[in-house]
Amino acid sequence: MAGYSMQKEDILKRLNRIEGQVRGINRMIEEDRYCIEVLDQVAAVTRALQQVSIGLVHDHLSHCVVDAVAVGGDSATDKIEEATAAIARLVRS
Amino acid sequence: MAGYSMQKEDILKRLNRIEGQVRGINRMIEEDRYCIEVLDQVAAVTRALQQVSIGLVHDHLSHCVVDAVAVGGDSATDKIEEATAAIARLVRS
Amino acid sequence: MAGYSMQKEDILKRLNRIEGQVRGINRMIEEDRYCIEVLDQVAAVTRALQQVSIGLVHDHLSHCVVDAVAVGGDSATDKIEEATAAIARLVRS
Amino acid sequence: MAGYSMQKEDILKRLNRIEGQVRGINRMIEEDRYCIEVLDQVAAVTRALQQVSIGLVHDHLSHCVVDAVAVGGDSATDKIEEATAAIARLVRS
Repeated sequence: MAGYSMQKEDILKRLNRIEGQVRGINRMIEEDRYCIEVLDQVAAVTRALQQVSIGLVHDHLSHCVVDAVAVGGDSATDKIEEATAAIARLVRS
Repeated sequence: MAGYSMQKEDILKRLNRIEGQVRGINRMIEEDRYCIEVLDQVAAVTRALQQVSIGLVHDHLSHCVVDAVAVGGDSATDKIEEATAAIARLVRS
Repeated sequence: MAGYSMQKEDILKRLNRIEGQVRGINRMIEEDRYCIEVLDQVAAVTRALQQVSIGLVHDHLSHCVVDAVAVGGDSATDKIEEATAAIARLVRS
Repeated sequence: MAGYSMQKEDILKRLNRIEGQVRGINRMIEEDRYCIEVLDQVAAVTRALQQVSIGLVHDHLSHCVVDAVAVGGDSATDKIEEATAAIARLVRS
């Protein structure tokens, strides 16, 4: 599996790690750690979430969009419109 | 033309407007306008550029990716990998 | 407490909620939920993390930076440089 | 001038360069250049604008916010609230 493709197991492993990172930030706040350190941890979690998003976009294009294109017609147009809307929300988030 | 689709002419019109906005920010700096006002203009241009990006992603999926999927095989896989990489750069930018 | 200020308790509450949201995304993946729905949940968590970041930036400016400015000299310059670097990482993340 | 500080002249030079880059993207669209190349140019301009924003934030903190803190009271609180709001719009843009 090369490139941006993520297996279900890989996504679950990443999400478990992210959950642990969020718990770690919680602990940093409890212990009154320096704001800048906390901010950097929050930015690290944001980046980790973005990587999961990219994996999901890749899988979506590779499966749902490819299948819809095979069917053709409105089905393909609709899926591409829907995928673009999701990518737009991602870019703005 | 509904949704995220952008005609070439529409993209060119948006880019002309963005060029004018950048020139406007230049003028604001020359006139020592208040930083917060300038910052908001910069954020407005960033958002306008993101909208152009989303239009370009939509057109890319609708044409290049759809055509590659019709051909099938490695051609489709490669185009989807390439599109995902471009979307990843967009999300991170 | 108006505006962007966040009490320690409020930040902890938000982080607990974010942790729950990440666990929810994990469950969505386990249940093979539709990619677009999952993507939107990921974008929601990213936005929730950004709000925490903004609260942390506000507190940092209100306390550490204000205190350093009161001391003056290099201390103030260093703190502002450090705060700007953290904001830059946030904007790019 | 170290770090994130930007002289007025430097900001103007960067904005001139950005204006030229936007004109370059316009030309790429006219010439029907490959979408992925255009997308990467748009991402490059977005990053260049973010760097200008960071310079403006740094200058704002170093001058307006520092001056308001010297005056103290509501003046300082208001300026920090306003700066945070601008940073929040930047992070979300």
